[in-house]
Amino acid sequence: MVDSSPSSSTVSRTALLLLRVLTFVFLLIALILIAVAKTNDETGDKIKFSDFYTYRYTISTIIIGFVYNLLQMAFSIFTVVSGNRVLSGDGGYLFDFFGDKIISYLLISGSAAGFGLTVELRRGAPSNSFTDKAHASASLLLIGFLFTAIASTFTSFALPKKPNN
Amino acid sequence: MVDSSPSSSTVSRTALLLLRVLTFVFLLIALILIAVAKTNDETGDKIKFSDFYTYRYTISTIIIGFVYNLLQMAFSIFTVVSGNRVLSGDGGYLFDFFGDKIISYLLISGSAAGFGLTVELRRGAPSNSFTDKAHASASLLLIGFLFTAIASTFTSFALPKKPNN
Repeated sequence: MVDSSPSSSTVSRTALLLLRVLTFVFLLIALILIAVAKTNDETGDKIKFSDFYTYRYTISTIIIGFVYNLLQMAFSIFTVVSGNRVLSGDGGYLFDFFGDKIISYLLISGSAAGFGLTVELRRGAPSNSFTDKAHASASLLLIGFLFTAIASTFTSFALPKKPNN
Repeated sequence: MVDSSPSSSTVSRTALLLLRVLTFVFLLIALILIAVAKTNDETGDKIKFSDFYTYRYTISTIIIGFVYNLLQMAFSIFTVVSGNRVLSGDGGYLFDFFGDKIISYLLISGSAAGFGLTVELRRGAPSNSFTDKAHASASLLLIGFLFTAIASTFTSFALPKKPNN
């Protein structure tokens, strides 16, 4: 019975790492798509993501989420190699909990802002490679958010336990 | 020592109820503002929130958040009157946890979508009572989200405690 406990912890850590790798990959593709979308021309004007404040916000959330997941993956590798958590005690659990919570809010806000603008831009100009790429980028960001939200649920249940009232 | 535990629980329940009442009030004002914004005319055309898919999404998230907070307040009143929780055992804690988590994601997505469109609409037409009201509504929705996110942090820490691994 005592031996089965670390295995359950290892399973949830592996699941967390997998979710972070998946988020990382989806955010990377979302970043490339929105950055590449700047090459589109229309009626002589060049349209790129930086022409819109909203897409600039979306790209900022992607980059912040990307850096956070890179950091978390580095921490995981350090833990596997050294056998110790980077943040010992309750600090590590609290960092994971608040980190996942805040980053998941950031990611869904970036995705929703991107969708909110893209949907209306698309209604003005029906078919357009710029809005198609922006739409795909917001979709991938939404999937990245879903993985982070699942990770956030895991880290909520892993919070340091206080005595029940 | 035993007597101090229920008092700590009462404090966090009161804080939660306060956060829900505040969210409820801010969502109500946000709802009125975005609904009222339809009365604006410009160059002969009537512009209202339902002309934009994005604002329709924003108003949907406000209404869902509003109903959820109404339900939670009703549950709180029932608990105070009857002395029992509506959902007994772990069910109540899980309902609070997932409810607050999902509703807070919905609220920030509605607010971000509203902001994402409003910011770009404002750049096209500088001063406009319609976009001013939409902006105010998205701001109030963001404040409502912040209260729900704080409530969600409370209900994460109140999750049923499992044995530590």
